[in-house]
Amino acid sequence: MKKVNIGLLGFGTVGAGVAKIFIENREVLRSRVGAHLNLKYVADIDMKTDRGVRLDEGVLISDAEKVLDDPDIDIIIEMIGGEGIAKEFILKAIDNGKHVVTANKALLAAHGNALGRAAMEKGVDLAYEASVGGCMPIIKSLRESLVGNRISSMIGILNGTCNYILSKITDEGMAFESALSQAQENGFAEADPTLDVGGFDTAHKLAILNALAYGMEINLKDIYIEGISEITPLDIQFAGEFGYRIKLLAIGKDRGDSVEARVHPTMIPFDNLLSNVNANLNAISISGDAVGDMALYGFGAGMMPTASAVVSDIVDISRNLLSGVSGRVPLLSYQSEDIRKIPVMPVDEISTHYYLRFSAMDQPGVLSKIAGALGRHDISIKSVHQKGRELEGLVPIVMLTHLAKEADMKKALSEIAALDIIGSKPVIIRIEDKNGQD
Amino acid sequence: MKKVNIGLLGFGTVGAGVAKIFIENREVLRSRVGAHLNLKYVADIDMKTDRGVRLDEGVLISDAEKVLDDPDIDIIIEMIGGEGIAKEFILKAIDNGKHVVTANKALLAAHGNALGRAAMEKGVDLAYEASVGGCMPIIKSLRESLVGNRISSMIGILNGTCNYILSKITDEGMAFESALSQAQENGFAEADPTLDVGGFDTAHKLAILNALAYGMEINLKDIYIEGISEITPLDIQFAGEFGYRIKLLAIGKDRGDSVEARVHPTMIPFDNLLSNVNANLNAISISGDAVGDMALYGFGAGMMPTASAVVSDIVDISRNLLSGVSGRVPLLSYQSEDIRKIPVMPVDEISTHYYLRFSAMDQPGVLSKIAGALGRHDISIKSVHQKGRELEGLVPIVMLTHLAKEADMKKALSEIAALDIIGSKPVIIRIEDKNGQD
Repeated sequence: MKKVNIGLLGFGTVGAGVAKIFIENREVLRSRVGAHLNLKYVADIDMKTDRGVRLDEGVLISDAEKVLDDPDIDIIIEMIGGEGIAKEFILKAIDNGKHVVTANKALLAAHGNALGRAAMEKGVDLAYEASVGGCMPIIKSLRESLVGNRISSMIGILNGTCNYILSKITDEGMAFESALSQAQENGFAEADPTLDVGGFDTAHKLAILNALAYGMEINLKDIYIEGISEITPLDIQFAGEFGYRIKLLAIGKDRGDSVEARVHPTMIPFDNLLSNVNANLNAISISGDAVGDMALYGFGAGMMPTASAVVSDIVDISRNLLSGVSGRVPLLSYQSEDIRKIPVMPVDEISTHYYLRFSAMDQPGVLSKIAGALGRHDISIKSVHQKGRELEGLVPIVMLTHLAKEADMKKALSEIAALDIIGSKPVIIRIEDKNGQD
Repeated sequence: MKKVNIGLLGFGTVGAGVAKIFIENREVLRSRVGAHLNLKYVADIDMKTDRGVRLDEGVLISDAEKVLDDPDIDIIIEMIGGEGIAKEFILKAIDNGKHVVTANKALLAAHGNALGRAAMEKGVDLAYEASVGGCMPIIKSLRESLVGNRISSMIGILNGTCNYILSKITDEGMAFESALSQAQENGFAEADPTLDVGGFDTAHKLAILNALAYGMEINLKDIYIEGISEITPLDIQFAGEFGYRIKLLAIGKDRGDSVEARVHPTMIPFDNLLSNVNANLNAISISGDAVGDMALYGFGAGMMPTASAVVSDIVDISRNLLSGVSGRVPLLSYQSEDIRKIPVMPVDEISTHYYLRFSAMDQPGVLSKIAGALGRHDISIKSVHQKGRELEGLVPIVMLTHLAKEADMKKALSEIAALDIIGSKPVIIRIEDKNGQD
């Protein structure tokens, strides 16, 4: 029987999941690929064998170089993570003419353009379905299924940790810190949660998706990023009263000569499918001129869902190998000569709806001063709610605005913050509301 | 520049949508494929030109044979529908060495095995993404993305007409007939709605999905099919009170040596993602040993969403052509020699939860007679509700059961229907409830 030889670098959680699929679903893989997917080596410096997976004798080794230099190995799976040694190994694998599968979004967001060029020059495939959205076939959908569409927007919940924490704050009224601790206890957050709760992981993923959707180079540095650490139960409660839920969204929109690329906590209406995507689940909604709206939903992280996506890449490449082709689908869906440097629209230029919460003194004229400042900067108020009493004479005043420009909003807010009637920094949360275009 | 020549048979709604994408998105297609997708001929006996699409001079012809015999044509798109001439044309296209794209689920469900063999013998691709779920990449997900998984179940809303009608009955309390009329007026239902509301279209799609998921031959004839025409506002109202919505579901489950394959109105709990998929939208939830639960959501029909899926097939085949390969992915995901004749479990053998509604006389002992009959057939009642008063002394008695076997249920119901206290035929609706396994 035909055989495809595979070398796995990194025997952590997802790496072990990949090995588990190769072992437990050997038969179903063989009958789908028409060849034996042979996990020849698993390299990990730790040499930990207690991963719940029983590797054959001699498969687990500590020396990654031995895997990279083995002429029998067809495909290298990089499951090390980070931008250091992982990048070196991928480049060496490519240089040795091996196809590469990775889930490393941080690396792809930072160096994906260069890695892609290296793979193309060498005529090998670089596959990365598991880098975004875990088990959801979002990369394949953009590279292969939605190719007849001009994509107009993508809106995604792409980080399970943040979604878990926001769901806890929403459903149980927890403070951010308690929800984070609970996520850590339950294995949904890292000891250092910055990459996740700071929005950076989501931005890595958005950089990849925007490139695929809009035919642009991967551009991480211009993405606007705001994390979830300042979201309070109070704002979530107000959001609920207005018919919204707060989610950390990745937003990528076609704006003609530029694209929007931003990651921030966002209010979305209850009737938006994404508002019901809770716990550690992910989802992405994609709008295109032919499909209208389409969505994918599933586990965006975790051992087996991520491993499922890695294995789909292995099968894709194996089917290529068995057919004697490579480079069948361009790395970023578009032909490399058609990929442009499309600028990211500065966040100051975006227009959106806003939720604003001010802590103001409970005295006459307050509302008129706030509204006056907003009006002077062309921001029109859709509704105002003044509810309850906070402390020391400060009351929360909550407003929803019509479409307003971010630059105007910043100017207005800095004027308002300087008023002596305002107690603490105004809270500003953007709203993504298809039903309210004005 | 490289060119792929395409012939389109059938210039109806979806055919026109496909032409529209080729024309309006020519550039984005060229940059994704690296070749010009040239719609050389559109053949339609009607020669209607008022489809909202401006074809070049000489493209629209009436003679399909001319397209099939043109040696320049690489890919034939069959958009005629039905099992007659469409089948002949596809076989002739295959025989002439042309790749074929179709959305014809009725044909595939009935003759897909034979068509697939013909394509394989001739070494051409037969692609059918648009046959199930419109724009949702469900075929590609099963053939390529979920290949590392053993699929355990699929549950889908796969017919927009039925979903539109059920949503109308649910949200506006309409009777079935009025909702159907409104669907017809709004273009969501055919003049002869039997194929849709009878559940047959959904069954065609399930036959295809089961083959892909479980490595079995396409088997339409053993699917259990029940349509939606007997669903009443009363049962929908009771469903809502118990926390369920009624949807027409396609259910495909791995049962070891057999599969479940059934289409019927089903109650699903509010917290099931599918219960919020309304109007003419489609969705499918797939469970696999690695992915856990994953779902796709989108427009399952309509001009442009369906055309988007057709074009994705064209791009797939074009990428194959430009790489000089065909048959890269097996027609049904599994190697043909591994495809088995897995039997469909007779519906009498399935176990599920049931909603039962009896119209009974309002007199002492009624409940004990009904409960007694159920108990004699091992059916255990989870809850009973007796509400309001219907007419002529008959009251609705509603019950939810624990897991029960369909054969037992039938026996019990025929005993109950024969009781002199029962006024009309009992209503029985199956419940799909992950949270209640007992």
